[in-house]
Amino acid sequence: MVHAPNPPPPGAPPVRINLYSDTQTRPTRGMREAMAMAEVGDEQNGDDPTVNRLQDRMAALLGKEAALFLPSGTMCNVAAVLTHCRPGDEILGHETCHILTSEGGAHGALAGVQITPLRGPRGLFDAEAVRAALRVKRRHSPPQTLLEVEQTANIGGGTIWPLDQLNAVADVAHEAGMATHMDGARLLNATVASGIDAATMAARYDSVWLDFTKGLGAPVGAVLAGSAEFIDAAWRWKQRLGGAMRQAGVIAAACLYALDHHVERLAEDHANARLLAEGLAAIPGVAVERPDTNLVFFDPAGAGMSAADLQSALRLRGILVSGLGGRLRACLHLDVSRAEVEEALGAAREVLGRG
Amino acid sequence: MVHAPNPPPPGAPPVRINLYSDTQTRPTRGMREAMAMAEVGDEQNGDDPTVNRLQDRMAALLGKEAALFLPSGTMCNVAAVLTHCRPGDEILGHETCHILTSEGGAHGALAGVQITPLRGPRGLFDAEAVRAALRVKRRHSPPQTLLEVEQTANIGGGTIWPLDQLNAVADVAHEAGMATHMDGARLLNATVASGIDAATMAARYDSVWLDFTKGLGAPVGAVLAGSAEFIDAAWRWKQRLGGAMRQAGVIAAACLYALDHHVERLAEDHANARLLAEGLAAIPGVAVERPDTNLVFFDPAGAGMSAADLQSALRLRGILVSGLGGRLRACLHLDVSRAEVEEALGAAREVLGRG
Amino acid sequence: MVHAPNPPPPGAPPVRINLYSDTQTRPTRGMREAMAMAEVGDEQNGDDPTVNRLQDRMAALLGKEAALFLPSGTMCNVAAVLTHCRPGDEILGHETCHILTSEGGAHGALAGVQITPLRGPRGLFDAEAVRAALRVKRRHSPPQTLLEVEQTANIGGGTIWPLDQLNAVADVAHEAGMATHMDGARLLNATVASGIDAATMAARYDSVWLDFTKGLGAPVGAVLAGSAEFIDAAWRWKQRLGGAMRQAGVIAAACLYALDHHVERLAEDHANARLLAEGLAAIPGVAVERPDTNLVFFDPAGAGMSAADLQSALRLRGILVSGLGGRLRACLHLDVSRAEVEEALGAAREVLGRG
Amino acid sequence: MVHAPNPPPPGAPPVRINLYSDTQTRPTRGMREAMAMAEVGDEQNGDDPTVNRLQDRMAALLGKEAALFLPSGTMCNVAAVLTHCRPGDEILGHETCHILTSEGGAHGALAGVQITPLRGPRGLFDAEAVRAALRVKRRHSPPQTLLEVEQTANIGGGTIWPLDQLNAVADVAHEAGMATHMDGARLLNATVASGIDAATMAARYDSVWLDFTKGLGAPVGAVLAGSAEFIDAAWRWKQRLGGAMRQAGVIAAACLYALDHHVERLAEDHANARLLAEGLAAIPGVAVERPDTNLVFFDPAGAGMSAADLQSALRLRGILVSGLGGRLRACLHLDVSRAEVEEALGAAREVLGRG
Repeated sequence: MVHAPNPPPPGAPPVRINLYSDTQTRPTRGMREAMAMAEVGDEQNGDDPTVNRLQDRMAALLGKEAALFLPSGTMCNVAAVLTHCRPGDEILGHETCHILTSEGGAHGALAGVQITPLRGPRGLFDAEAVRAALRVKRRHSPPQTLLEVEQTANIGGGTIWPLDQLNAVADVAHEAGMATHMDGARLLNATVASGIDAATMAARYDSVWLDFTKGLGAPVGAVLAGSAEFIDAAWRWKQRLGGAMRQAGVIAAACLYALDHHVERLAEDHANARLLAEGLAAIPGVAVERPDTNLVFFDPAGAGMSAADLQSALRLRGILVSGLGGRLRACLHLDVSRAEVEEALGAAREVLGRG
Repeated sequence: MVHAPNPPPPGAPPVRINLYSDTQTRPTRGMREAMAMAEVGDEQNGDDPTVNRLQDRMAALLGKEAALFLPSGTMCNVAAVLTHCRPGDEILGHETCHILTSEGGAHGALAGVQITPLRGPRGLFDAEAVRAALRVKRRHSPPQTLLEVEQTANIGGGTIWPLDQLNAVADVAHEAGMATHMDGARLLNATVASGIDAATMAARYDSVWLDFTKGLGAPVGAVLAGSAEFIDAAWRWKQRLGGAMRQAGVIAAACLYALDHHVERLAEDHANARLLAEGLAAIPGVAVERPDTNLVFFDPAGAGMSAADLQSALRLRGILVSGLGGRLRACLHLDVSRAEVEEALGAAREVLGRG
Repeated sequence: MVHAPNPPPPGAPPVRINLYSDTQTRPTRGMREAMAMAEVGDEQNGDDPTVNRLQDRMAALLGKEAALFLPSGTMCNVAAVLTHCRPGDEILGHETCHILTSEGGAHGALAGVQITPLRGPRGLFDAEAVRAALRVKRRHSPPQTLLEVEQTANIGGGTIWPLDQLNAVADVAHEAGMATHMDGARLLNATVASGIDAATMAARYDSVWLDFTKGLGAPVGAVLAGSAEFIDAAWRWKQRLGGAMRQAGVIAAACLYALDHHVERLAEDHANARLLAEGLAAIPGVAVERPDTNLVFFDPAGAGMSAADLQSALRLRGILVSGLGGRLRACLHLDVSRAEVEEALGAAREVLGRG
Repeated sequence: MVHAPNPPPPGAPPVRINLYSDTQTRPTRGMREAMAMAEVGDEQNGDDPTVNRLQDRMAALLGKEAALFLPSGTMCNVAAVLTHCRPGDEILGHETCHILTSEGGAHGALAGVQITPLRGPRGLFDAEAVRAALRVKRRHSPPQTLLEVEQTANIGGGTIWPLDQLNAVADVAHEAGMATHMDGARLLNATVASGIDAATMAARYDSVWLDFTKGLGAPVGAVLAGSAEFIDAAWRWKQRLGGAMRQAGVIAAACLYALDHHVERLAEDHANARLLAEGLAAIPGVAVERPDTNLVFFDPAGAGMSAADLQSALRLRGILVSGLGGRLRACLHLDVSRAEVEEALGAAREVLGRG
């Protein structure tokens, strides 16, 4: 079966400490109450007041004219690419970016575009890399029409793009006649960690979106923002893709609740990530990447255990981490407390024989 | 703006009696409570118990091996077509069907298929019409790979396909090597009105789906069913289209609630539809199509008033009906009581000078 | 095998009189000499002088700014649609048009568009039919962006669109914001038969093309014309589709030769078509459609023989006609002389027992 | 204008020695005679005896069951990808390969696939690079369904893939469930230079094609080969793409002539390439890549002159070379004699001040 997730090792207990992903956060009681009370209407007629309030608020937060509620972050990327590009166009993005690695080939399949991978450390690339990838404009070459960045860069390590670098790559793209798109699935992690607000970060990006189902803890939904004209065109694709919903206020209410209650607290996840990273780094032989935000990538190979073995051993203790490209990833979020981080650290030390 | 809905006439009061569409039903208190209590997990990892329960229940109800939760009925159609067909294929469906008229050209845009419209009264066609549309198989012709029916046929008048006719057209399609797909957005209206269960109706259809946001009154969601292999393949398209969600149990819970509480009551909507149809038919000059289910199509032209004028006049009295192809449509659903139907009838009589 | 053509009946002699299609004309000695002498260069660099001369001449003939040489008429249609439309768009064309029936579903597969069939006698439709097919512009409807006509209308009977009707349907389309495209595969048959020049006929069409492999008798090639901007954009699709060639002057030379030697003589084919039609109509029970140009459609059912049986009986006498939708089609062209028409008529009379 | 080729520098004389590309070879007198004499029929009905002869001969030469004549090499790649892949699939190919750099984004636009660039010296990659690019099969990842190699690797330097390496990368692909495709535009250059026949080289490739408009000197055409089932499916795409022609024997005859007369002589081009490479390498400061076949890549930067300046200076002497990615490329072919190579070398020495 294509979609079967990895099974747990035999004998594994239920997961107690879930460091797998911030996508697995559960809605809190307060969030559920907000959903239960939500005022609703027909979203695809523009009549859902809660969705409208969320869209207005997100447009303001992201510094754009308009915004659009969609059922997922992947649909934000797909709708944005379908709106920016025509079949045969080329997109430039990092070789580890979500649109290239984790959307099932959707952008070729649905938008007819080709994504050219750029390289650079920690999921980032610089203006020079963009310049080097620009093609001479001729009939044989795909038209290069979109530059994409991911803020934060997930597989890169939850890395924050510095503002200067974000602006520099966007400027090169614009000079070359390309549009710019920011996959801001975890954008608020970057703003909370850096103190730079979202609108400033997205200022030179023609479209940008935020996912509410990651660290923000909402169950369903993401919001894409851009110019009024862009959002109007994106509406057509929302309709075609099947993203037009009905009384979507019930889920948008959770997103509004998250904006009110779950943004500043991302700092706790970042602190927990640092705690975990420092603890892991103190185990001899464990290589740990410095966490910018809420993701901790580490590799126990130097401690004499493979990543897969450590993952299994932790899972047998009720602790779930994910494996990504030979490394392990621990993701901190609102369902993981400081005490649980310490417990996980203890388990890691024990498994690695350093407890 | 492409997406602006029709504005109400100047001076119109708020809508009191909403006969526009059963898509505009609001979740009830009981449904909201079910959502607030829903047990959830990561839906795209297969870990949301409420979604899983809904899928299992729907597979059983529709008589298929497996089922898939999606954010909308349009996505059920799009994912099904992407799974059944390859680019260049041809689909046969009624000229009024939703996939042809109301999905923004999605099937060409996303699946690369061509839909050939069949004709027939009341949104239905017969085996002969399918046979007449079959092409000689040659290299110049698009391969015909899918037959689509809509049960009930919305623009046809909320019409119920008789079981024999459903089976007959499916048989012709299967003999010609085509797959069959049932757009069952309002399938349960057909089963409640006819007494024929859903699995029987869908028995000769390789895929079938039900919308929960119409007469069933849930805010978001639809479920597509088919063979295990079909659903496994459809999962890929769910992912690519951006229909993979996270803690989707919060909306799936509303669908389960609807299955428990809002199915049998569709009979009330059908009774209200008959009441409305009979009342309208009693107004001299008003042409009314006999309602099979919850949709009443009528045309006041013979009473000396255009459909658009009657629509405006009703709207000024707080009563909303929709205009579809020169006719008016009134849709009965759980937010419209028998008393409101009578009030709407009174308003129609008054406006048409027969009060 | 998908591509196997219909086999001849057992015992059939070689074809002596080929009324199957004007696509089967063979290059004449003069045409072959022109090809052998052709001055050539790299066509896709714009360096083939013979191709350039053909393109310039065709732009002038069709009254457009620019023209583009392509290996087939199908590619003219495909490149034009890809240039005019975006995925999700809708095209209006006659239900018998080539792009809908004979290009293998290419326009959905490659351009992502949907073609809505219009109806009307003899392959034509009128302004009212176009108006009736216009959709209200809303987000759920496919954008209607192109109107297509076929001059002459092949399956319609080789019918000539009257100039007024051509202009009227184009005007409705332009008022609705649509572009217009003329499939002029046999356009010169229409101009020779009507005395109206090609540029006048195509004046309100944003793109138009002519096939050289039909009545004009060249082996390979067609030319698409339009504004300079349109042709520049179409070049990209020529490249992507694999229509960019190299020393294509060798085949373009045959097209230039055809323009010099094979245009006026189309009148002979038309006279032969009338001769054949009159002769067939004189056989009791044979229904014959009046030929506007070089195609004669007829049905022997009234004479007590099926179309398929007559086709086989003629084939056994070395005479090849084609079957199209229950009728037979005889196509007149430069490889069929008046004497052969008379011989074919004699055979038909004999087979039908009237000889 | 997108399609304008680079203009020559002001004052440039006509080109006398054309080292730009082997695509610019002109048909010889003998080849033109073969074309003028060609027996022809309707190619898309399977009735052109010359095309059929060419296809049979190529199937044998390439060691496959069946073959298909197409108007260009690009169409061979496009039709092959459309046949092997479904939208959303991923192809692995070298980062310099033609399908990625020189087909205008066709594979995304028309087939909906994504091409992931592999790296490796001289246009080649090894089995390890393929293995490293294999993704875990899960729903979020594009299905990897095709491996593509280019024999010879054009931008890599006209490089010949060693047979072991060809086989090794194909084996990895097959083990991973992928199909394999060889872009053999210049395959016969590889076979003549290596002594390994084409069928052996292509043995582990599910499809392979040869271009006749490069070193073989024909004006138009390429032939794609594979299993009978593959070719039958590719026929549909030939039809849709507009590659189905009529009396295509006139151009296929040139290809047959080339097989008879222009294969062994490719060795002369290779000798000329070595002569040119050695001569250029003898100029101090000029970096020259060892030519495997008929392409010579060089960079005069170390001699104090930019590639662009040397290109212009040669062009002013009537000598045309191409610029590719900061380097210059000289292509040897049947329109360039040994004496002309010596003259070009003399010019290069003179321009670089070493004359």
